[in-house]
Amino acid sequence: MSIRVGILGYGNLGRGVECAIKQNQDMELVAVFTRRSPENVHILSEGVAVCHIDDVEKWQDKIDVMILCGGSATDLPVQTPKYAEMFNVIDSFDTHAKIPEHFANVDAAAAKSGKVAIISVGWDPGMFSLNRMYAGAVLPEGKDYTFWGKGVSQGHSDAIRRIPGVKDAKQYTIPVEAALEEVRKGTNPELTTRQKHTRECFVVLEEGADAAKVEETIKTMPNYFADYDTTVHFISEEELKANHSGIPHGGFVLRSGKTGWNGEHNHLIEYSLKLDSNPEFTSSVIVAYARAAYRMAAEGQKGCKTVLDVAPAYLSAKSGAELRKELL
Amino acid sequence: MSIRVGILGYGNLGRGVECAIKQNQDMELVAVFTRRSPENVHILSEGVAVCHIDDVEKWQDKIDVMILCGGSATDLPVQTPKYAEMFNVIDSFDTHAKIPEHFANVDAAAAKSGKVAIISVGWDPGMFSLNRMYAGAVLPEGKDYTFWGKGVSQGHSDAIRRIPGVKDAKQYTIPVEAALEEVRKGTNPELTTRQKHTRECFVVLEEGADAAKVEETIKTMPNYFADYDTTVHFISEEELKANHSGIPHGGFVLRSGKTGWNGEHNHLIEYSLKLDSNPEFTSSVIVAYARAAYRMAAEGQKGCKTVLDVAPAYLSAKSGAELRKELL
Repeated sequence: MSIRVGILGYGNLGRGVECAIKQNQDMELVAVFTRRSPENVHILSEGVAVCHIDDVEKWQDKIDVMILCGGSATDLPVQTPKYAEMFNVIDSFDTHAKIPEHFANVDAAAAKSGKVAIISVGWDPGMFSLNRMYAGAVLPEGKDYTFWGKGVSQGHSDAIRRIPGVKDAKQYTIPVEAALEEVRKGTNPELTTRQKHTRECFVVLEEGADAAKVEETIKTMPNYFADYDTTVHFISEEELKANHSGIPHGGFVLRSGKTGWNGEHNHLIEYSLKLDSNPEFTSSVIVAYARAAYRMAAEGQKGCKTVLDVAPAYLSAKSGAELRKELL
Repeated sequence: MSIRVGILGYGNLGRGVECAIKQNQDMELVAVFTRRSPENVHILSEGVAVCHIDDVEKWQDKIDVMILCGGSATDLPVQTPKYAEMFNVIDSFDTHAKIPEHFANVDAAAAKSGKVAIISVGWDPGMFSLNRMYAGAVLPEGKDYTFWGKGVSQGHSDAIRRIPGVKDAKQYTIPVEAALEEVRKGTNPELTTRQKHTRECFVVLEEGADAAKVEETIKTMPNYFADYDTTVHFISEEELKANHSGIPHGGFVLRSGKTGWNGEHNHLIEYSLKLDSNPEFTSSVIVAYARAAYRMAAEGQKGCKTVLDVAPAYLSAKSGAELRKELL
C-alpha cells in the first residue's frame, strides 16, 4: 500500500511536492488543500481531490502525512501546531532564529496527538544543517563556513520591487570565489559579510523613473545591500522574463579542521548544491522526510523532530538490507 | 561522567582514535588492548593502561564502548562478533562486498548480548555512504558518481612492492578532472574505469633492477593497473621518504538528478573530502559514532547498526536544543 500524502497550500512549493511525489512509487497524492476556491486551483495530477482547507479535518483517516507548503512568516507558525493535532506533518519553516520556539509549539501539539511532525525540512535549514552537524561531530577542532548562491533571493528581489520607480526586479546572491578558495586552503580565514558574497540586481524601471536614484537606493539599503558589493543592471521587461524567470539557487557548506596529537593534519569537508529550481529541490527533500515521518509514526514515535533526529535509512524506500548492499 | 572508551589494536588507526578522543571532552580513553607484549607498545596518552588482548574480558564493567582497530581482511570478521558479546563496539570494516555477511554475524552477537555494534564506520564506507543515501532519497531520478583521490592506495602500493626488483613504492589514485567536470554539467555520462581515475606510482628500485621491466609489470598488472592510465616515476629512497611518507586521501560523491513534472530541472549534489591523513580522519568519524553507540545503548537499543541507521544528533556532544539553535 502506498503512503497517502496530502498537500496543504498550492504555490511553487506545493506544486514541487506534487512533482516529487510522482517520482516516488511508494507514495500517492490523495488531496490538495487550498484557502482559495478549489474550482480555481488547477493541479497537475489527474484524479486527485482539490479541497478547501476548511474540510481538512474530514481527511484524518485518509491521509498518512500532510505536507504543509505555506510560508514561514505567518502561515507555518499557526498551521504546523494546528495540523500536527490531526496529522503527521512536514514543514519547511526556515526562519532560523525562531526555530526553537516553533519546535516547542509543534512538539507540544504532536506529543499530545501522538503524531510525528518534522519541521524545517529543505536545504537550509535541512541538508545544509545535516552537513554542519556531521562535519562538526567528525572534526570538533575546526571552523564552519556557509556560502549561498549563485541563486535568486526572493527577499532581496522583493526589497528592490518596493522601491518607487521599480517595476520588477530579480536579485542574485553570488559567493565570492576567492573567499571559497581561501577556505579550501585550510587557513580558517575570518571573512566579513562583504568578503563572502556579492549581490547582482536586474531591475526593470517604471517609465520615467530616475535610474541613478534607484541604483543609489538599492546600494545603500541597510541589511539588504549596504554591507555588500552590489551591481545593478537596468534591463527591459522582456529581457527579465527571457533570462531571469528561473528560481535557481545553491551553495556550499565547508568545514576545515585539524586532527593528530598536536593538530598536525588538515582536513576539508565540502558539501555543495547547484539547483535549477529552489522550490522543486526543497520539495524533493520534504517528500523524502514525509516517508520518514510515516515510518517513524508507524513505529510508535511521536512529537516534533528535525532532520537531525531522523536516521537516514528512514528516508529511502529501500530496505535496510538493500541499502547495506547497494550504498554502504 | 565521561564516556569510557577502549581501543583494541594499536596501529595507525588505533593511534588516530587516541588522538580523536583527546579532541572530545566528553570521552575518556581508559585502556588500549594489543596482541603484542604490552610493555613494547608505547601510546601517546599518559596514565592510560596498555593491556594484552587476552585480558579484555576483565574490562567489561569499565568500558562503555570498545573501538576495534584491526584490519578488514582477517581481524574484524572474527573480532567484531566476538567483542560485541561483551561490549558496545565500533569497527571500520570496509570490504564492501562482505558487509551483508558481516552485518548478520555482528547482529546475531549484539542482539544476544544486548549491546550496540556500529560497523563499517569511516569515510567510504561511512560518510560517502551517507551522502549516497541522502542524495538518492532526495533525487530518486538521478545518477550517482564516486571518485576517489587524490590519495594513497595502500593496496596498490603493496601490489607494487611485491614486484621483484622493487624496494619500496607509493601509489596515488587521482580522479580525472575532465570526468568530474562532465558529471558536474549534469549530462549523466557513462564513464569507464579509465575515464574516471589515473594512477601515479613512485617506485624505489633495488640495486641493479630492470626499470623498464618493473614499469611494464606495473602497467599490465590485472585489476590493479591494466584498466587505468598509469604513470611510473623512479625515485630515490630519500625522495620517497621526504615527499611521499604521508597518507593523504579523499574523494567526491556526486549525484546529478532531475525534478519537475517532466524532469525539466537539473540538480547537482556534491560532497567531497580532502584529507591530510586518511587514518586520522577515519578515526575521527569512528569516535563520533562511539558516542552514538553509547547513547543508543543507554536508551535500550541493541544489535548491529550502520551509519545509515544512526540519527545524526547522536553524534554530537551537544543537546538537541543546542543543535537546533546553532546548526539548523
